[in-house]
Amino acid sequence: MSNGQPRGDTGGSVPAVEFGAKILDMARELAQFSETTEGLTCTYFSPAHKATAARLRDWMRSAGLAAEIDAVGNVVGRYAGAANASRTLIVGSHYDTVTNAGQFDGRLGILIALVVAEHLHCTGQRLPFHLEVIGFSEEEGVRFSAPYLGSSAIAGRFNETVFDRHDANGVSLAMVLHAEGVDLTAIRELARRPETLRGYLEVHIEQGPVLLQNDLPVGIVTSIAASARFRVAIGGVAGHAGTVPMSLRHDAAAAAAEIVLAVERRCAEGPNLVGTVGQLAVPHGVINVIPGCCELSLDIRAGDDATHAAAIADILAAICQIAERRGVTAEVAEIARHAAVVCAPQIQSALARAIGRTGIEPYYLASGAGHDGEMFAGVTDIGMLFVRCGNGGISHSPCEIVTAADVDIAAHILLDTIVNLDQLDL
Amino acid sequence: MSNGQPRGDTGGSVPAVEFGAKILDMARELAQFSETTEGLTCTYFSPAHKATAARLRDWMRSAGLAAEIDAVGNVVGRYAGAANASRTLIVGSHYDTVTNAGQFDGRLGILIALVVAEHLHCTGQRLPFHLEVIGFSEEEGVRFSAPYLGSSAIAGRFNETVFDRHDANGVSLAMVLHAEGVDLTAIRELARRPETLRGYLEVHIEQGPVLLQNDLPVGIVTSIAASARFRVAIGGVAGHAGTVPMSLRHDAAAAAAEIVLAVERRCAEGPNLVGTVGQLAVPHGVINVIPGCCELSLDIRAGDDATHAAAIADILAAICQIAERRGVTAEVAEIARHAAVVCAPQIQSALARAIGRTGIEPYYLASGAGHDGEMFAGVTDIGMLFVRCGNGGISHSPCEIVTAADVDIAAHILLDTIVNLDQLDL
Repeated sequence: MSNGQPRGDTGGSVPAVEFGAKILDMARELAQFSETTEGLTCTYFSPAHKATAARLRDWMRSAGLAAEIDAVGNVVGRYAGAANASRTLIVGSHYDTVTNAGQFDGRLGILIALVVAEHLHCTGQRLPFHLEVIGFSEEEGVRFSAPYLGSSAIAGRFNETVFDRHDANGVSLAMVLHAEGVDLTAIRELARRPETLRGYLEVHIEQGPVLLQNDLPVGIVTSIAASARFRVAIGGVAGHAGTVPMSLRHDAAAAAAEIVLAVERRCAEGPNLVGTVGQLAVPHGVINVIPGCCELSLDIRAGDDATHAAAIADILAAICQIAERRGVTAEVAEIARHAAVVCAPQIQSALARAIGRTGIEPYYLASGAGHDGEMFAGVTDIGMLFVRCGNGGISHSPCEIVTAADVDIAAHILLDTIVNLDQLDL
Repeated sequence: MSNGQPRGDTGGSVPAVEFGAKILDMARELAQFSETTEGLTCTYFSPAHKATAARLRDWMRSAGLAAEIDAVGNVVGRYAGAANASRTLIVGSHYDTVTNAGQFDGRLGILIALVVAEHLHCTGQRLPFHLEVIGFSEEEGVRFSAPYLGSSAIAGRFNETVFDRHDANGVSLAMVLHAEGVDLTAIRELARRPETLRGYLEVHIEQGPVLLQNDLPVGIVTSIAASARFRVAIGGVAGHAGTVPMSLRHDAAAAAAEIVLAVERRCAEGPNLVGTVGQLAVPHGVINVIPGCCELSLDIRAGDDATHAAAIADILAAICQIAERRGVTAEVAEIARHAAVVCAPQIQSALARAIGRTGIEPYYLASGAGHDGEMFAGVTDIGMLFVRCGNGGISHSPCEIVTAADVDIAAHILLDTIVNLDQLDL
């Protein structure tokens, strides 16, 4: 990749190098590799996925990085630090996508890091740590219902039980890796020792409307939200819609409706708390039959664990109360729970200083979505920068957009943050 | 059918003839004709349906009635009245069933009428009108999504556009009738002239829990409820369950939940008003995606048209208000609406007198379910007697039960009502 004639310094103030347009061009080019002729779908080790990895690797090499695709499919580009550097700062995100995805989810963070590393290389700047730009191979969990395959391997958290998971065609992850010539034990060896890491930084589109609503191009992530998922099955009494008086009903859908509104009401007590019923159905519902059962899903997230636990406790209690009052049963199954991951204050400060130098007010927000950085919690310090997501904040959709201007600002802030990361926190 | 040695009078007071056990035996015998090896399913012109019709016709003949199966499949048994009789009282119900049905829905009313007619015949009682016991061939609308095929033909309301309707195997109603050797124009000729009818009487299980709750074996139907059905589609804004703050959401499922509860609340203002959301779904819902759309059905019924119209207006207004406040769209499509059918006060009085003579307090209730009698509204006076439905009031289910004692009481009340129908209303 050509250097695009860097024209400026890296010391902060308003950017003088035009990174934004170039990064959008690269994202557009990557989006041509898709499993579908229309739109973008790029799941783990599909032909589109492998083509994307190869292109990223080639771009990294052209940018002056020593780049390889590792056993789990991560594209790792290394820019060596100063002679006395011992630790490594990882800057990355993922290049796999959801089905019918946008072009920026994950990829934006890789491309910004790549262009920043290229700029460091071209301007001959040496850092007090090694820099690794990593395009993680798998974060969305689409093909094997197992997310974070790439970042968990680097963080030393790869769960080998997922080798036995099968995709929709009945092919196991182990079979896929064998077909790619991967020695499964090689994945274990990808794990970095914590003492060799300086930290983990990630730029990502916000995937929400908060920055857009606040008219800000970027925001500093304070934490990746605690999250929990439940399935709730309500058992009522089916009956004829015309013959059972309202007072004698045990309507499972009415109980579910009350639960939906209880979740909404409790989570509105936020901030940094959200609750969603994404799935709601009366199985085999009939227009003239009182629902005898109703199923719903529950997704609760909060910026900190205490807020999260309190909301879950209140919502589960509300479900019990609603069920008891209505004479229906409620079976609640917890299917996932993750603690909040707090972003390192020192990295938040470094991001804030870099943002401040552009003249923008630093703005802090929790990430409601999960990100690769979660895998590095407890392994090394993590930090994240969010970029404003246009179009109402929509993501996981072809309608996902960012502007070149915002991307340019984010790239300059990342460059400044990296260059000045070990500046004393004033 | 043998007469079973009638042992008593017909003039009221506590029954001396044991009709109940015999009728339950007959219902059990009919239930052996089923399209399925387990349970009871008997849809229009299936082999089970034709076997049921033949058995009913044979029983009617054994009971002393002049019985035939007509062009549309109705089993019609005539017991001629006194020499000066000119008009005909029809007493009937349907012998088709829903899928996996109970044994009494419809059939109970035919069998009670049959046994009562047999008793009249055996005791040599002549009535001031002819009596026709009719087993209607089709009321449930299962096979062709067209209910009341049998009763509409007799009432002169047969809708000939349904000839073109197809069943699940792509066979049209016209094809079925041709295969049975039916001349389609013969169905039109089944229509009775209103001036030849004395009235229409039907005994039916309640299919609800009201009599059970009130500890009463029978109840007098005041009206067959007005009913209306709607489909509602809510359009919100899909979004990431983790990243969109509660205050910025336009959640289609939350709006639907509010509608479900608004329907429940408004219809609880009854009496004789019910509202049901039997179908409720977030199509293709995903656990971590805010619902962008949600679909629901609406079934609203009331004992009188004014109550019905007011409830519908309030519910539709509530849907608009909920949608507007939440910034979602609501498309409401009315798919059916029927006015209430009022039972003739004179027949209600005759039933009440007969009930009173058994020492039971007459109890009045509206029918939330539709019945064959609806077809006779405006054609002749109609009246209905409900029999207590056990097991919580469940119907359209193999769990549907009635007791021999209740059936016996109902048969004696029907007998008394018929014999004394033209007694002056005191």
